[in-house]
Amino acid sequence: MTEIMGNRRTGGREGRRAVRLSHAVERLPFLTRALAPFEVLGDEGLSIIEDNADTLLQEVGIDFRGDAEALRLLASAGADVDGERVRFPRGMCRSIVQASAPRQFTQYARNEANHVEIGGPHTVFAPNYGSPFVRDLDGGRRYGTIEDFRNFVKLAYASPHLHHSGGTVCEPVDVPVNKRHLDMVYSHIRYSDKPFMGSVTAPERARDTVEMCRLAFGADYLETHPVTLSLINANSPLVWDSVMLGAARAYAEANQATLLTPFILAGAMAPVTAAGVAAQTLAEALAGMTFVQLTRPGAPVVMGSFASSMSMQSGAPTFGTPEPALVLYTMASLARRLGVPFRSGGSLTASKVADAQAAYESAATLQPTVLAGVNFVLHAAGWLEGGLAIGYEKFILDADQCGMMAVFVKGVDMSENGQAVEAIIANGPGQHFLGTAHTLANFETAFYRSEVADNNSFEQWEEDGSLDAAQRANAIWKRMLREYEAPPLDPAIDEALLDFIARRKASMPDSEI
Amino acid sequence: MTEIMGNRRTGGREGRRAVRLSHAVERLPFLTRALAPFEVLGDEGLSIIEDNADTLLQEVGIDFRGDAEALRLLASAGADVDGERVRFPRGMCRSIVQASAPRQFTQYARNEANHVEIGGPHTVFAPNYGSPFVRDLDGGRRYGTIEDFRNFVKLAYASPHLHHSGGTVCEPVDVPVNKRHLDMVYSHIRYSDKPFMGSVTAPERARDTVEMCRLAFGADYLETHPVTLSLINANSPLVWDSVMLGAARAYAEANQATLLTPFILAGAMAPVTAAGVAAQTLAEALAGMTFVQLTRPGAPVVMGSFASSMSMQSGAPTFGTPEPALVLYTMASLARRLGVPFRSGGSLTASKVADAQAAYESAATLQPTVLAGVNFVLHAAGWLEGGLAIGYEKFILDADQCGMMAVFVKGVDMSENGQAVEAIIANGPGQHFLGTAHTLANFETAFYRSEVADNNSFEQWEEDGSLDAAQRANAIWKRMLREYEAPPLDPAIDEALLDFIARRKASMPDSEI
Repeated sequence: MTEIMGNRRTGGREGRRAVRLSHAVERLPFLTRALAPFEVLGDEGLSIIEDNADTLLQEVGIDFRGDAEALRLLASAGADVDGERVRFPRGMCRSIVQASAPRQFTQYARNEANHVEIGGPHTVFAPNYGSPFVRDLDGGRRYGTIEDFRNFVKLAYASPHLHHSGGTVCEPVDVPVNKRHLDMVYSHIRYSDKPFMGSVTAPERARDTVEMCRLAFGADYLETHPVTLSLINANSPLVWDSVMLGAARAYAEANQATLLTPFILAGAMAPVTAAGVAAQTLAEALAGMTFVQLTRPGAPVVMGSFASSMSMQSGAPTFGTPEPALVLYTMASLARRLGVPFRSGGSLTASKVADAQAAYESAATLQPTVLAGVNFVLHAAGWLEGGLAIGYEKFILDADQCGMMAVFVKGVDMSENGQAVEAIIANGPGQHFLGTAHTLANFETAFYRSEVADNNSFEQWEEDGSLDAAQRANAIWKRMLREYEAPPLDPAIDEALLDFIARRKASMPDSEI
Repeated sequence: MTEIMGNRRTGGREGRRAVRLSHAVERLPFLTRALAPFEVLGDEGLSIIEDNADTLLQEVGIDFRGDAEALRLLASAGADVDGERVRFPRGMCRSIVQASAPRQFTQYARNEANHVEIGGPHTVFAPNYGSPFVRDLDGGRRYGTIEDFRNFVKLAYASPHLHHSGGTVCEPVDVPVNKRHLDMVYSHIRYSDKPFMGSVTAPERARDTVEMCRLAFGADYLETHPVTLSLINANSPLVWDSVMLGAARAYAEANQATLLTPFILAGAMAPVTAAGVAAQTLAEALAGMTFVQLTRPGAPVVMGSFASSMSMQSGAPTFGTPEPALVLYTMASLARRLGVPFRSGGSLTASKVADAQAAYESAATLQPTVLAGVNFVLHAAGWLEGGLAIGYEKFILDADQCGMMAVFVKGVDMSENGQAVEAIIANGPGQHFLGTAHTLANFETAFYRSEVADNNSFEQWEEDGSLDAAQRANAIWKRMLREYEAPPLDPAIDEALLDFIARRKASMPDSEI
């Protein structure tokens, strides 16, 4: 990649490094877990769920709606197609996916230091996705704008704990629906150099995304390097619709990666039980990944699962409850058995503000996310209100938790320094360790340092204004935006992108669908 | 126990049941995990830490201070005693503990429905312990009083998610130090019928606790039934002091249970590294449990670990960081290998208020607590400010999380109803599950229902006053106290207890030490 990108940049490798250093953006690598994943079901239970998914694929089947080409493709691969209903012989989907889908792949970024590995022992954190509203302590809740969008791209770029720029970090509702994807993709390229996601709201918008990536990365490069990872949601239960199939096809044909994610509010789009949600999710995801692998064998796919519980009084989605955590752990195990990367989790909450509910619910999703070994984590920072809003303060608080997870998964340091036996022997009973050689030697890196937590005395905290965590986070995101400096972008690429966007925008009238 | 307790109560078993039902206190059992514990170290790493603990016990030894009887006892068992320094031959402590300490035991409650199992696959949640300050949204932060103490006993009694009444839920600073243990133990007996903890601040206060339990439960009964579980903290590094040894002896001699807990702020009372903290904690706990088993073989002991990280800038303790979680998981594994119940964790935070920091940090402690398989969880509800304060709202928020943990550890329901294959087949693609037979049949128990979380729409939430989680919790604890009704207590026992307390209080002048 260095060579290819070098052609499109000024100053070569050394020049770029100097530029990077001058910006002093702290970068931490994506997570590489030293710990085995936590499992909530053994082989027997997982086999039963796999068998149930096969039963659903065979007996009920999946509707592939409004896409005759998909039906032809699936039929020619051996599926039983009846109208738009597609039934799969037992094991068909699994064997097609296992034959060509990569177990792990690299998603490439503009900056090689920000390439991410999707799969295996790795976990990549990406910000919130899809919220029409934004919230901050100053302005309250309001519709998101392209300025908010750019702000969140900048914050994800500036945060060492997020490894990915995400996709629709918020909906820029001040830009027409049929044109906003152009501004969003441009923002990810222009204001960040971390990897990002493409548009999926219409097949032609996916194709626009691919076209812009060709301008930014080079057309040949794109053919062999996934630079986008885009979110293809099932229309659960048991339906893939034409918009999602069209977008998935556009990305697969360009060898770009997709996340095939059944989005399930248990009790509405699936049964209320964890094993039921898991079987249905697996069936839907298998069918979607099969479509992608048939479209272009080897195109990177990630199996997704988004499952929430619901309030059985109001029907509202609920988050941070134990049942979705059980689904998450189960699906992660199923993805490992299948041999594909897995997406789930995040910092999910139904809370409207960045309060204790928001934090408890987010932690009750993020901890299972990490312990289950999720590979790609959308919504890792910012999510509020069941996804209806992204919060500036919530973003800061969540990113801090992501940072803690990165330390946790490294596990226990069993080096001699880590064991510290000599240090304890040298110290002896009743003597504190504050100034000992071992403590001083490990001072800098001993403990995770939260930027948001207040660990001062009550008196000091009171003197500092008795601020709560959200209030402290408010000051942090403002400072980050103030200090933000854009990563370098070759002016020729920038010009080409802006020209493409101008032509595309001029080619069609504004539309709100 | 039924027979024995029946003699001391009115109305017998049926009468008691009727009384219980009339109070309509919801009771949920302590947790019984269907899930294997999460492990962060394999056998090799754990063996190294055990070996390091043996090295510390042999080469450095432990100071047993101000207790000549303890030194005699340890010497006669084979330890090398030099002044107050006690060195243990390799493996000595382990073999003494394994020879007589129970792997699991029952702590008995006034109400047999509230007996708890300590050890094995069980987890028991007890409230906050030891805070001099209390906080609520109305009154802010202030010193705790005996009224606050009673309030928290009542709240723990009324909460279905706490299985234990705890000990010094807050310090009742309006009662003289040398007399407050009498009022505290009385409050646990009078205002709750869940199991509780005894006083440890002086050996004679431990003996007073035992005496009051004899009055409440019967002297013969006490001899064979642990009704108290009391907190014996090491004076880390590598010291057990006379107060703690005296209290531990008083309880062990009465066959009452003790928690032997090194309380470690890593970097101050131990090295900063997880493996170092673990080796030292194991050494200290082994020495303490050895003392108890030599005092009375078979007296129930729980191995404890309380480890926090620290701010390397200010020296303040920090909570919810990844490093103490790694220690917690490691110590839980070591306790299982030793074969004794384990205490750790809780809902710990350095936050001054029940905000997002408090919730994130608490969750980052409670989740490892539960996944590690901790058997007895002190500080499960209410903790703020590194333990300096207990919060009324925090108590409610934490208890709700404990409730979620109880559901999570049951794992995935793999019954036919749980698998729900027929329900999915019957429904088919594109049809929602809201009114299906399977959903209706599982409606009541499908998902954990939080009492505190707001899952309503933004508009409804706004209409309800835009309350945050702490504000909602405020209304909940007030309602719980308003609706509280004391469990029945035989008036003869009550009179005997009050008489004992009056005599003890009259026997000594007030003292603040």
